[in-house]
Amino acid sequence: MLGTLEKIEGGVCAPKGFRANGVHCGIRKNKKKRDLALIVSDTRCSAAAVYTQNLVKGAPVIVTKKHLADGYAQAVIVNSGNANTCNKDGEEMAEAMCSLVQEYTGISASDVIVGSTGVIGQKLSIDPIKEGMPSLFEGLGDNSGAAAEAIMTTDTVKKELSYKFILRGKEVRIGAIGKGVGMICPNMATMLLFITTDLAISPEMLQKAVSDEVVDSLNMLSVDRDTSTNDMMCVLASGLAGNKPITFANAEYKRFTEVLHTVTTNYCRMLAADGEGATKLIECRVKGAKTKEDARLAAKSVVNSNLVKAMIFGADANGGRVMCALGYSGANLDVNKIGVSFCSSAGTVEAYKNGCALVFDETLAKQVLSRKEIHIVVNLHDGKEEAVAYGCDLTYDYVKINGDYRS
Amino acid sequence: MLGTLEKIEGGVCAPKGFRANGVHCGIRKNKKKRDLALIVSDTRCSAAAVYTQNLVKGAPVIVTKKHLADGYAQAVIVNSGNANTCNKDGEEMAEAMCSLVQEYTGISASDVIVGSTGVIGQKLSIDPIKEGMPSLFEGLGDNSGAAAEAIMTTDTVKKELSYKFILRGKEVRIGAIGKGVGMICPNMATMLLFITTDLAISPEMLQKAVSDEVVDSLNMLSVDRDTSTNDMMCVLASGLAGNKPITFANAEYKRFTEVLHTVTTNYCRMLAADGEGATKLIECRVKGAKTKEDARLAAKSVVNSNLVKAMIFGADANGGRVMCALGYSGANLDVNKIGVSFCSSAGTVEAYKNGCALVFDETLAKQVLSRKEIHIVVNLHDGKEEAVAYGCDLTYDYVKINGDYRS
Repeated sequence: MLGTLEKIEGGVCAPKGFRANGVHCGIRKNKKKRDLALIVSDTRCSAAAVYTQNLVKGAPVIVTKKHLADGYAQAVIVNSGNANTCNKDGEEMAEAMCSLVQEYTGISASDVIVGSTGVIGQKLSIDPIKEGMPSLFEGLGDNSGAAAEAIMTTDTVKKELSYKFILRGKEVRIGAIGKGVGMICPNMATMLLFITTDLAISPEMLQKAVSDEVVDSLNMLSVDRDTSTNDMMCVLASGLAGNKPITFANAEYKRFTEVLHTVTTNYCRMLAADGEGATKLIECRVKGAKTKEDARLAAKSVVNSNLVKAMIFGADANGGRVMCALGYSGANLDVNKIGVSFCSSAGTVEAYKNGCALVFDETLAKQVLSRKEIHIVVNLHDGKEEAVAYGCDLTYDYVKINGDYRS
Repeated sequence: MLGTLEKIEGGVCAPKGFRANGVHCGIRKNKKKRDLALIVSDTRCSAAAVYTQNLVKGAPVIVTKKHLADGYAQAVIVNSGNANTCNKDGEEMAEAMCSLVQEYTGISASDVIVGSTGVIGQKLSIDPIKEGMPSLFEGLGDNSGAAAEAIMTTDTVKKELSYKFILRGKEVRIGAIGKGVGMICPNMATMLLFITTDLAISPEMLQKAVSDEVVDSLNMLSVDRDTSTNDMMCVLASGLAGNKPITFANAEYKRFTEVLHTVTTNYCRMLAADGEGATKLIECRVKGAKTKEDARLAAKSVVNSNLVKAMIFGADANGGRVMCALGYSGANLDVNKIGVSFCSSAGTVEAYKNGCALVFDETLAKQVLSRKEIHIVVNLHDGKEEAVAYGCDLTYDYVKINGDYRS
């Protein structure tokens, strides 16, 4: 069924009715780095979002929650270089950003989603944003790439995705921009992910799709086990595709949730592969669990383990560390049934069976773990549920990047 | 009251009735590295222990639990270089080690505590241990240092402690050897810690003291958030001090628990300071919490955060990362009341007040965070409880050590 999902160009501007742009306004000192992004829809959109569950919440998270309470939005403004978190006037500044959008576009400030990413606890001045607004607004168009660049922090590549698919004869498009790549261990949403679609869907069904979705995608991603204060994933649906609006959980709704899952899990893979300092993407698939939650706990525990992450960096097939991480994961499991394999494009190495270590070909193991994408496959042989978690290796560069982030 | 606790030499041999030794028997290839330790008591001891809560448990943990079921023990045998975990014949090998102790010392195998540390999932051969027994036994004496060396893995310094104190006119001694320093995030006990004392105390009261103790000491220590499969802390009490045996929670019992707390928290500090690759000890003290458990959760979350650990390595006073770790800690707290300071022998920097970032002297902050021991003091201003957690910085060397542990 997902075979008919076709990758296309355009990012958040691929769906009908969306324009975007990104500029350098001066929040960051480096003039070559864009730091302010805007996405605008021609029509008022059904809108849904999930946010960080960290008790310390960025001011933009609080303001966006307020603006999305009615289920509708029409624009997104985001800055990088400053998280606007733990600041006394944080909410005031976030509201001021939305008012600037209203001033230039005519869209009500209360229909604007606002996001910020960067250093926590540094005052955000509205001045550079004010100065950047004219060029940001004038350049609105098919510029998803510029917007994607403007929200990057330690990301090394910009993150854009777009697809089209057919829904009862109507072509529907979906696009996304997002960023990572440190303080990433989302709980309800990830750092920043903005998705647009021209699908017609009610705000209620959109929120249901988003809320149900994150549990198996963004919540299963971890770069460093640090749940950020500013995580936010928002979906805007313009309705311009012309499909019969989705208002209950019918076949079209199910199809949309599958598409959304493809977008979010691809995004997880992009984020994990570009995790701070990362050289390798790690996917841990846990099969044969008693419950879905056991599978999730076990898989996430493996990608979260510093020891597993460091061993993947060093291409050292130490299955004992995977066993150890499964053992303290909190998942209900029978140690004596566990099987562990390492897989990549270079082959497969079976490292543990029935909870015991196997002797394997060390040369092959080194080759398997030297590829860019490593799959750790765990079979608990204890049930039928499974889950996948996404992570990356732990490297010298992660330490370097985070030893001196503010400078 | 603790002022009368005097540091002495001797390690586990300081208390009356204990002899120890450590030799190289050949489990490790490096002939300069001792890999087999033995502690023997002249009398049968009250014995108590706590073990890892990891579901994947090392065979020595399982065998020791069995041997300690009656509350008594008389010897400890430990090897490094192999964890004897996830091996089919693991329990058989652990029992064989105890039988060798019986053969040489005459102490019943069921009164022997056995421990192993090293790589998980590699078969442990009894042959080198058999070969090492004669010299291990013959050398038994005042050799706590040799035993401490023999249980080291990635430790860079051996860990020994001993104290004496007066209990109702009787001099009582207590000594300990232990090791870390990777896969350290104990839950019920830490990697390996063996404590001897000549105190007279019933097995029941000794177990109560040990179980009550670890919650605020060893369980508050984290090098890398990876709870090991082989954690074990054991206390042997020979009774040779001649004090009236402790059989209920009287003043002497309370005094002993205070001494035990000094031993275990000093051990935590030694372990954290020598954490794999660590250059700095981090102590996070959380005050003003609603409950003790809130204080523990908050403090441990801070020392567990890779971002906090990397920033301490880089001497970058980014209080936002501490706020972030508090926010996702699971502790019940009011974000708007939180204060955060960084302290060391170079001074104190107040970074957050009422949940908001403060402007501080960056030069002083750099000096404060450049010392070897960093205290992060958090005041939740929300109650009267407090807790301390122990950790270390995250460095290039942690990644290096763990990228290629098995080789």
